[in-house]
Amino acid sequence: MPPINYPNGKKQAVPVKKGAPNAKNTISYGNRGMTLEEDLNKSNEYYLETGRAVIHKKPTPVQIVNVEYPKRSAAVIKEAYFKLASTTDYNGVYRGRYIDFEAKESKNKTSFPLRNFHEHQIQHMEAIMNHGGISFVILRFSMLNEIYLLDASHLISFWNEQQSGRKSIPKKDIETLGSLVPPGFIPRIDYLKVIDKMYFKQ
Amino acid sequence: MPPINYPNGKKQAVPVKKGAPNAKNTISYGNRGMTLEEDLNKSNEYYLETGRAVIHKKPTPVQIVNVEYPKRSAAVIKEAYFKLASTTDYNGVYRGRYIDFEAKESKNKTSFPLRNFHEHQIQHMEAIMNHGGISFVILRFSMLNEIYLLDASHLISFWNEQQSGRKSIPKKDIETLGSLVPPGFIPRIDYLKVIDKMYFKQ
Repeated sequence: MPPINYPNGKKQAVPVKKGAPNAKNTISYGNRGMTLEEDLNKSNEYYLETGRAVIHKKPTPVQIVNVEYPKRSAAVIKEAYFKLASTTDYNGVYRGRYIDFEAKESKNKTSFPLRNFHEHQIQHMEAIMNHGGISFVILRFSMLNEIYLLDASHLISFWNEQQSGRKSIPKKDIETLGSLVPPGFIPRIDYLKVIDKMYFKQ
Repeated sequence: MPPINYPNGKKQAVPVKKGAPNAKNTISYGNRGMTLEEDLNKSNEYYLETGRAVIHKKPTPVQIVNVEYPKRSAAVIKEAYFKLASTTDYNGVYRGRYIDFEAKESKNKTSFPLRNFHEHQIQHMEAIMNHGGISFVILRFSMLNEIYLLDASHLISFWNEQQSGRKSIPKKDIETLGSLVPPGFIPRIDYLKVIDKMYFKQ
């Protein structure tokens, strides 16, 4: 088995078990496309190292069922399941304010499907706003390579209008209500620059 | 191989071969005692439901190596490892401020061992303070059933004094520099009341 590239960008050797079943349904988690996540993690690392902000991605919520403790080596989780996140993926502190956001990408070109979010997250964002936190979503149109930052209040409005039948946010509304995050090199996604303009009026 | 009954009548474990599935070392993760964590989770749930604050425990950081996708059922993580947390376990927003803390318990009665924390967490707390967040630790003396809230600045001072040989924080210093969190029923650990006094001067 070749080394897997993990989201932190570091290669890590995979401990290969003797006699491990090479089942067809066994696929490597590390090979999942995670471009937006990787770019945001890199950007957050840069913000941390340069003292701009402290913002981290939360670990993937996992329900651990069974753990083995082999002698002289690290504990191995042998059975676990993915859990639905009850909050957003990213949070932290910037300029004294609580920052909280979710990041999603879509291959759609004209609108962003609301199925990328779920009820718990919407409720979470609403609560964050009520407590004076800054809450938003980072939306990437992957086919266009355009990234927008949209305040949670707008997402919540579109979410609540779903009953009327529209299951996505039209791109033109995202352009009008949100802000384009220009692509960069270091950091790759300089969303704090957009936050400065949107939430700190400068 | 079944356990062998030796002539003295006592059952004795069979030496386990390397690489063999080791049933003895397989323990259920759910059986670990997590009183402080459970009490804090319950308290945070209460705060969330009553609209007091939005504070969550972060998921346990796990390095996922292999996932199976059985047909017609949920994905199963078949191999994963615990990772050292680079941040603290709890964060969120309260009264517009970013809140960030770690919670630990010790069976010691006269001091709290610093080995409960690690360098990354100390650096994280320092960064949080620099960015205007509220950072602290909740320390439980489990044998005495006493819980204290101690601002991160004090923990960091003791951490940095470790070179002088003292590897723990004397309880009397925690009593003087920190605040006792009185035990309660709902919520079980009403630490926001202490935060009001310590950080909001009321």
